Amino acid sequence: MKEFELIKQFFTEQAVKRKDVLLGIGDDCAVVSSTENQNIVVTTDTLVAGVHFPLGTSPKAIGHKAVAVNLSDIAAMGAKPSWISLAITLPEVNDDWLSEFCSGVFELCEYYNVQLIGGDTTQGPLSITITAQGLTPEGKYLSRSGAKSGDWLYVTGDLGDAALALQHHKEEILIENDIIEHVQDKLDFPKPRVLAGQALREYASAAIDISDGLLADLGHICQASNVGANVVLDAIPLSDAMKKSQDFEDSVQLALNGGDDYELLFTVNEDNKVGMETALSHAGTVITCIGQINPSQTISTTLNNKAVPIRSSGFQHFSAKRNT
Amino acid sequence: MKEFELIKQFFTEQAVKRKDVLLGIGDDCAVVSSTENQNIVVTTDTLVAGVHFPLGTSPKAIGHKAVAVNLSDIAAMGAKPSWISLAITLPEVNDDWLSEFCSGVFELCEYYNVQLIGGDTTQGPLSITITAQGLTPEGKYLSRSGAKSGDWLYVTGDLGDAALALQHHKEEILIENDIIEHVQDKLDFPKPRVLAGQALREYASAAIDISDGLLADLGHICQASNVGANVVLDAIPLSDAMKKSQDFEDSVQLALNGGDDYELLFTVNEDNKVGMETALSHAGTVITCIGQINPSQTISTTLNNKAVPIRSSGFQHFSAKRNT
Repeated sequence: MKEFELIKQFFTEQAVKRKDVLLGIGDDCAVVSSTENQNIVVTTDTLVAGVHFPLGTSPKAIGHKAVAVNLSDIAAMGAKPSWISLAITLPEVNDDWLSEFCSGVFELCEYYNVQLIGGDTTQGPLSITITAQGLTPEGKYLSRSGAKSGDWLYVTGDLGDAALALQHHKEEILIENDIIEHVQDKLDFPKPRVLAGQALREYASAAIDISDGLLADLGHICQASNVGANVVLDAIPLSDAMKKSQDFEDSVQLALNGGDDYELLFTVNEDNKVGMETALSHAGTVITCIGQINPSQTISTTLNNKAVPIRSSGFQHFSAKRNT
Repeated sequence: MKEFELIKQFFTEQAVKRKDVLLGIGDDCAVVSSTENQNIVVTTDTLVAGVHFPLGTSPKAIGHKAVAVNLSDIAAMGAKPSWISLAITLPEVNDDWLSEFCSGVFELCEYYNVQLIGGDTTQGPLSITITAQGLTPEGKYLSRSGAKSGDWLYVTGDLGDAALALQHHKEEILIENDIIEHVQDKLDFPKPRVLAGQALREYASAAIDISDGLLADLGHICQASNVGANVVLDAIPLSDAMKKSQDFEDSVQLALNGGDDYELLFTVNEDNKVGMETALSHAGTVITCIGQINPSQTISTTLNNKAVPIRSSGFQHFSAKRNT
């Protein structure tokens, strides 16, 4: 097991040194400080090889994604990421693999000034668990439970590309090479909407990041907020790559149920709409209004202003929960 | 994967509700608060089935141990544990297994008023990663790096019992039934020295918890503090069960190199010795002085006041690192 001890050296070479980290990697615990007017947000996500990423995924993409899915949760709370702890289980020690994995982890950490403060390295089937923390002004955080009837429903970026890449991997969909490149990048290197999340803190009534699929995650907001929603299918943002390679119905299915988008889904009341759109104009992502919250406690969809039925595991999951 | 979603219900039934947890399980992140005069300590440990516990280990013991090894790290910093995040990867959903596992997790959490604030449940080979956090007055925490030449070396509890149980499991040592019961309990249900750690905060110059073995972890203190140490082998605390079933040399080998003890190893200078012993008298564990720190930068051992050579992977690991 000695070689597993030595892996720690890979994780001490990071560039980020935050002032609020009093003691970093190398003791029984890390020690951090927060100021009196801050709250701390905490999230944990595990990626298992073959379950959360295809077995052939590059180590850099695995490292990036393990950090990104956690920062995406921090973004959905409107917080600023600060520290991560990394637990990695590896079948064997491979220096090249680790070096590439670390470059994926540290590039994203450096971009957002996030410091790796500790973790654990163990031998076993490949999996990565990251606990990420972030800071937010006291009492100022977004949650899933604040959506009100009449609020507008927005989403960042385009939806469905990661799901398209995944279906291509499973050989369920054949797509052209230039399309693959774009959607593969969306699957492997999702961009957590960290700046958008912080900008939304003052304006959104509820927020979540889309990991399970638009309908499933909208279901989580509706359930937590005790409301319903209508989604305008013609408004769902789709990438050019998606539009080129898939017909409208398949595109919308991927966007509604695919998941792995790591875009933010959020609600804003009428009074905050203009302020939010202005604030988000510098957050590095387009936003699209895709519907509205209503009191129905169900999710409906419309196309060309006409109601259309939903075929979706995401929605069934939500409605099943509502009926218990 | 729907059944994996439902597992979350098992984790929402905890009794602990801390005031500093503003938002618990169920959103994208938990939200916690700390007061202005506190630091936060953070640690992460993974247990992999077949690596960190034998495959036949009871689910309750797995749950207990996953929490205990993390609280032990918090104790070694002199901090008070507050919150844990739990990532569990399971090959399949089994309600009885989960229920027992949770009882192991929650019994220990309730005892120390620690709240489970979130986590992740995924499908794959059995492993558990916990990130635990604790609180300590600002700037008041123990580390591995404060030991000074002349400081006395102490340890809580008895050493080697968990290693004896493990060797019995591997069928390398045969022991009697009443002995098995005692040492198996030490292996499966280690008691993190949380109260002792907090009591030590004012007195110890350095501390670590013994997970890798006495010599290896003493090596970590020596390396971080740039000192050496002498261990008096006749002073090492051994349980009656150990003494009954093993001769002195085998007992000491298990105590020096076995690991999995989760006792605290700490150093105290002469002036703090009496104060520390008084403070620790109510911390629920015996303490034993087993040696002294010196400036040699090596670890030596004595028996009947005579130097004896060390046979130990722990020490070799330490000395190998020192030589680079």
